[in-house]
This record gives sequence, C-alpha cells and structure tokens, in this order.
Amino acid sequence: MSKAHTQTCSVASFLNVFGDMWTLLVIKEAFYGATRFSEFHRNTGAAKNLLSERLTNLVTQGILEQKDVGAKGTRMAYELTAKGRALGPVMVAMMQWSDNHIYQNEDTPIKLIDRDTLQPLPLMIPRSPDGKPLGWDSIVAIPGPGADDVTRKRIRESAIGAPNLTWSEDAN
Amino acid sequence: MSKAHTQTCSVASFLNVFGDMWTLLVIKEAFYGATRFSEFHRNTGAAKNLLSERLTNLVTQGILEQKDVGAKGTRMAYELTAKGRALGPVMVAMMQWSDNHIYQNEDTPIKLIDRDTLQPLPLMIPRSPDGKPLGWDSIVAIPGPGADDVTRKRIRESAIGAPNLTWSEDAN
Repeated sequence: MSKAHTQTCSVASFLNVFGDMWTLLVIKEAFYGATRFSEFHRNTGAAKNLLSERLTNLVTQGILEQKDVGAKGTRMAYELTAKGRALGPVMVAMMQWSDNHIYQNEDTPIKLIDRDTLQPLPLMIPRSPDGKPLGWDSIVAIPGPGADDVTRKRIRESAIGAPNLTWSEDAN
Repeated sequence: MSKAHTQTCSVASFLNVFGDMWTLLVIKEAFYGATRFSEFHRNTGAAKNLLSERLTNLVTQGILEQKDVGAKGTRMAYELTAKGRALGPVMVAMMQWSDNHIYQNEDTPIKLIDRDTLQPLPLMIPRSPDGKPLGWDSIVAIPGPGADDVTRKRIRESAIGAPNLTWSEDAN
C-alpha cells in the first residue's frame, strides 16, 4: 500500500482501505460468491503473493473473515462480514457509473435487475428521509462529531449546497 | 498508473480509471468546489507533478474539463463535466460506508443533511423501479449486451441472487 492519507475525510479514509487496483476487485469476487483462495486467484488474475496480501489486509480490516467450512478436515473460506456486505451499495453505485459512462450502456457486461419486476435497477441516488430523490442543491454539508478546524473551514468555503450541481442528467 | 485490468467487468473498468489513491481525492475536491490547481494542491496535499498528472488524466477521461474563467486575461479552472458530476452517488455511497464502518458514526468529520428536513441522508441502497429498497436476494445478475463467454459462465456460477446476502443490517 502507498502512504496513507492523513486528512480528516471520509473519502480519504475509504481510500486508505481500498486505494489500490486489486482490493475492490477482490471484494467484488466475494460479492459474486468466491470464497476459496483458488477462486479469487482464477477470477481476478492477481498474482498469488499480491492476492494473499490483499486477502490478509481485508481480514485485518474486518471486511472478510476466514472460516473453516471443511466437512472432513480443514477447508478455509473467506466470507464477507457485515462490514464487508455493507459495501454492496458502493459496488452497485460504481457499476452503474461505469455502465453508463464507460460502457455507455452499449457494452455493459452485466445488468442487475429486480427479481420481481425483471426491470433494471434504477440509478442509485441520494434521497431524503422520506424517499425523495435529492440533487446537490438539496444537500448541505455540516460538521460531524469528528470535524477538526480544517474540516470546519473547508465546509464554510465549500460549494456543496450550490445550485446547478446535480448527480446526473437523470436526477433532475 | 499500474497495469490496467483486462476483465470484462464494470468494477474492473471503474478501477482502471480510479484505481489509485489520489484520483478519487481530486474528484472529491472538485465536488467540494475546488477549481484551481492551487486549490487542489493545497486541499489534497498531493505533490505538484503527481497532481498535474491526475488532473490531466481526468481531463483526458472527460471527467473534468478545463475552462478559461478569467475576466481579465487567462485563468484556467477545472470543472466537473456531466460524466464527472454523475460520480456524486458513488462519492456519497463511499462516504456513508466510511462514516458507518471506519468512523463508526462517532468521529464522522462531515455529515450530509437534507436541506428541507435537516435530517441526515439515509443510507443509499439499491431500489426497485418503484422505489422499494432491495436486498441482494431481490437482485438478479443477467448478461448485458457486452457479456463475453467468461462473463456468462461467471453469472451462471455466481451467488448473486442467493438469499441471506443483504446490503447491511439496516436494509432488512
């Protein structure tokens, strides 16, 4: 891993866990059902020493846990913890952006659909507590309990809350 | 940048654009209103040559655009394009995971609230076309127009659609 960010910032702290090319790909495989080292190895194409390091890091972070699932003898599996499963929305938000803006919805490899209606999942967007879709102009940043002086200064100077910043063309 | 992933996969293609420690931090600054090289430099703490490389990459990718905003003479600003603004939901999903699972909601530096109700934004989760919150067990992966043989095989073998995989404890 590169040097860690020291900013008091949720994105920076996210990147301190995931800011490399392989970690999120390993998580994606876990969501798709991989549990064995050999499955992660085959599906990601990561070199074994690199993969081993990423898996160990994810266990240390409490995102995966190692379980003995052997009926006869030891057979270790990596499974997502609650903290790991909570990454599901981040994964879906990333997939949707990539499908819309890299694959342009033309070469999308996988579509996620709602089992009931068989319709594609709509774009995930921030919503109000009563479920109303929100644009940037409806969202205000306020200091949290861990805000330091730099964070407070940044919030005062920030453009968050400014009109005309919408999530995407669809969100209007 | 490291070697690019070659998998036909939305997460892999996302990581090919963002899979380093600094790119997403630069995007975050753009969302918070930074437009000048000096602002990005001051706020991220990135070395100038590294920052310059990331900004150029983001302009090449069509996520930021350079505009001359000088009233008198040239003054270049970097602004989010529509493709860049569409990263908003990814940013919020990342912030929410980090606030809940790294800061444990105790030391959260910034809270995003709804301007109308002044309540914190609820957890972003995937929803059905009619707005119903969906767990993993309500989501099915199907091949998209760009699915290759490997993708089709992966979908057949995948655990997506399996019960008991929920986004988080709240999503039930």
